[in-house]
Amino acid sequence: MLFKVEMVVRIPPEMPADTAEQIKREEKQYAQRLQEQGVWRHLWRVAGQYANVSIFDVESNEALHNLLTQLPLYPYMEVTVTPLCRHPSSIHPDDR
Amino acid sequence: MLFKVEMVVRIPPEMPADTAEQIKREEKQYAQRLQEQGVWRHLWRVAGQYANVSIFDVESNEALHNLLTQLPLYPYMEVTVTPLCRHPSSIHPDDR
Amino acid sequence: MLFKVEMVVRIPPEMPADTAEQIKREEKQYAQRLQEQGVWRHLWRVAGQYANVSIFDVESNEALHNLLTQLPLYPYMEVTVTPLCRHPSSIHPDDR
Amino acid sequence: MLFKVEMVVRIPPEMPADTAEQIKREEKQYAQRLQEQGVWRHLWRVAGQYANVSIFDVESNEALHNLLTQLPLYPYMEVTVTPLCRHPSSIHPDDR
Amino acid sequence: MLFKVEMVVRIPPEMPADTAEQIKREEKQYAQRLQEQGVWRHLWRVAGQYANVSIFDVESNEALHNLLTQLPLYPYMEVTVTPLCRHPSSIHPDDR
Amino acid sequence: MLFKVEMVVRIPPEMPADTAEQIKREEKQYAQRLQEQGVWRHLWRVAGQYANVSIFDVESNEALHNLLTQLPLYPYMEVTVTPLCRHPSSIHPDDR
Amino acid sequence: MLFKVEMVVRIPPEMPADTAEQIKREEKQYAQRLQEQGVWRHLWRVAGQYANVSIFDVESNEALHNLLTQLPLYPYMEVTVTPLCRHPSSIHPDDR
Amino acid sequence: MLFKVEMVVRIPPEMPADTAEQIKREEKQYAQRLQEQGVWRHLWRVAGQYANVSIFDVESNEALHNLLTQLPLYPYMEVTVTPLCRHPSSIHPDDR
Amino acid sequence: MLFKVEMVVRIPPEMPADTAEQIKREEKQYAQRLQEQGVWRHLWRVAGQYANVSIFDVESNEALHNLLTQLPLYPYMEVTVTPLCRHPSSIHPDDR
Amino acid sequence: MLFKVEMVVRIPPEMPADTAEQIKREEKQYAQRLQEQGVWRHLWRVAGQYANVSIFDVESNEALHNLLTQLPLYPYMEVTVTPLCRHPSSIHPDDR
Repeated sequence: MLFKVEMVVRIPPEMPADTAEQIKREEKQYAQRLQEQGVWRHLWRVAGQYANVSIFDVESNEALHNLLTQLPLYPYMEVTVTPLCRHPSSIHPDDR
Repeated sequence: MLFKVEMVVRIPPEMPADTAEQIKREEKQYAQRLQEQGVWRHLWRVAGQYANVSIFDVESNEALHNLLTQLPLYPYMEVTVTPLCRHPSSIHPDDR
Repeated sequence: MLFKVEMVVRIPPEMPADTAEQIKREEKQYAQRLQEQGVWRHLWRVAGQYANVSIFDVESNEALHNLLTQLPLYPYMEVTVTPLCRHPSSIHPDDR
Repeated sequence: MLFKVEMVVRIPPEMPADTAEQIKREEKQYAQRLQEQGVWRHLWRVAGQYANVSIFDVESNEALHNLLTQLPLYPYMEVTVTPLCRHPSSIHPDDR
Repeated sequence: MLFKVEMVVRIPPEMPADTAEQIKREEKQYAQRLQEQGVWRHLWRVAGQYANVSIFDVESNEALHNLLTQLPLYPYMEVTVTPLCRHPSSIHPDDR
Repeated sequence: MLFKVEMVVRIPPEMPADTAEQIKREEKQYAQRLQEQGVWRHLWRVAGQYANVSIFDVESNEALHNLLTQLPLYPYMEVTVTPLCRHPSSIHPDDR
Repeated sequence: MLFKVEMVVRIPPEMPADTAEQIKREEKQYAQRLQEQGVWRHLWRVAGQYANVSIFDVESNEALHNLLTQLPLYPYMEVTVTPLCRHPSSIHPDDR
Repeated sequence: MLFKVEMVVRIPPEMPADTAEQIKREEKQYAQRLQEQGVWRHLWRVAGQYANVSIFDVESNEALHNLLTQLPLYPYMEVTVTPLCRHPSSIHPDDR
Repeated sequence: MLFKVEMVVRIPPEMPADTAEQIKREEKQYAQRLQEQGVWRHLWRVAGQYANVSIFDVESNEALHNLLTQLPLYPYMEVTVTPLCRHPSSIHPDDR
Repeated sequence: MLFKVEMVVRIPPEMPADTAEQIKREEKQYAQRLQEQGVWRHLWRVAGQYANVSIFDVESNEALHNLLTQLPLYPYMEVTVTPLCRHPSSIHPDDR
């Protein structure tokens, strides 16, 4: 089941640089593990913004919630979730 | 080059049913041709809405503009375009 | 899987009164059938508005989309969908 | 008398972790006591957000105000209240 | 139990003048009857707008909903309802 | 001359508790004095919010401005002013 | 007593041209009469818009309401009223 | 050439009182000098707000920018600029 | 003196196709004449939208107003005007 | 390929003055280098605001993203990107 998730990141300017770097490293590892498992299906950067557009493939709303709230950057994110479904004109077998 | 395009469709209620059906048939053919050509990379329905989330892969802003304004439903759409680029944490070779 | 769905109805003033009544009768029958089947779990009127707050229990985003777009009043509705999940402090066995 | 209450929680990042944990423990106890008393009729988590959708059953606006402002997390919440009433198409005896 | 109700009226310009006058006459009669009964406690015009600010005193959300939806101008109104309660600093015995 | 005034209070979380209590005590005294003088005609709490809806009866915009900016909580308030006048359907002699 | 009034005019495209011209002629006469009487103190066009920014000098909210609702273009206007008062740094004797 | 300028002032609560007083004194002197020179044509307080509505008469956008950014309170202001021009119905010789 | 002007065009769907074509032809001629005269300095299409971003170079707000309101498509446009001035970091001699 | 980029700068008031000056000096050098290279095609100040309107000419969304995120003031900016393309009525050879 697919969801579009948009994440805007706002790291507070007073956070020490190495703390920020450490969280971003953990975020990257976590994001890549979820991509390898197939649940984080797509991940794009929004041009000019510290933000991304993502597609998640999960079994339930609850599974999505658990994945998102464990993101190392989650406390600094504004997250918007949009439930998607197959479009009748789509020819892509995976876009469901 | 990738763009997220969100389209909300508002067909005026006074349009005759068979005119609407004819436009939707043409829209479907046009959308499927662009998907086969690889420029309309993804196409999802927003659950509960007459709206979609799409990913286009085009050579330029102008190419995108030309594709979108030729959509048979374009006169009845509200279109939002967001330029995307590769995310440094992405592992998907095509998400660029 | 639970979703909050908010529906605002705007029937065009030029619709003949008996057409409107007929659509509302069909809407009521459809809504009650879905409630009996357990998929439309809750249905409340917003005080002072021609609008409702509903809780749907469905298997997927796609199932929700199909149920909503078949509502007889759907062409005259503005629909907002919010995916829900179990709250860790909830004691209600059904609120999941 | 029913009200939909939506609560978004924003704990300031500078709050010490154990202070935050203590307030959340008290919040959970308070929320569960109100659920047992029947006044907090439903409590759902919004997927991907530190936010909830709730249904309260109280005798008056004033009773609702007193319950909400005693929430341990109240100083860190943005609260939206929507008065509800029975929907003429509802078949659920409790949704009033 | 008190509610602030704000009503903005938008009569469609194509409505015949005498139809509009007839609805406004019925609206005035209805509004004055509710004021005499004490349920429409206050009614003010917003300066420069075809809109009002009102205070209703009713037994329940449902009673409020029934009163408002029977307003002759209701189909042409945008209505906003805000539940109120006694303010701890108020000295007015009726403002509860 | 009547004005609706809506005040939302946001006391900064870092303000010491007894400072906040002292300001609120002064606010209550000031509010009650203005009510006794008849210029603060109505004062209601918005259910679920640290906010109020008020009706002021003053001689001029300037008199209103002076009263509001002397509120002890004024530096922590977001204030919205709406000029009111007598509604042609009102039967309340004081609602002017 | 001074008020800033902003008016945005939206004449429906289906109104016959000479009807529109007639209303605009009456509007101009009415506006100039109020300026001569001193109650419409200033009147400026917003560059690029069918809109104006005005300053009215009236005795009460009610006087302002009566003047505005008699504007020949009033049924086609969106009107915003902001109560003003003397600024402590102003040196203009009339800006009160 | 005329511009409407609206300024909302937000002095941070942690600024020492005498620093704030000093800046406000300088602001008043600067504002009065510009009024005497005729470039700050009107200056009104918005009732109930720490905000003003002003009319500037300058030779160019650049002249306006330079005047505004030298305001002692500029770093604490939210500024909105609206270009104005003569209204065809205006009878005031100076409102151009 | 420079202004950014953004224009969104909304031609009503009921306008006959040849009327629309005629207006667009006149619009194009008018736009090209102003470009040749140097007052319409830049004109870009917003990708995916029936909208443009333009830079005008005019002597006054009034000159800009007169140019814009004579656009053949003006009655069907939503226009936003932003006054610009030279940026201290600009190296382009014409960007003033 | 052209993009309109709007940047609003918000330097936190607690930043030491010489740190701010140092960042602004680096910003100016970086901006002028990009202008000399032809990628930052236009740069204007918004009158009355610490904000600019810019036109970038880049090869891809990714190139734009890299240029913008290396701006020394980027951590203090709110950035909005709008993809542009040639307007069919444009006569300027460079506006593509």
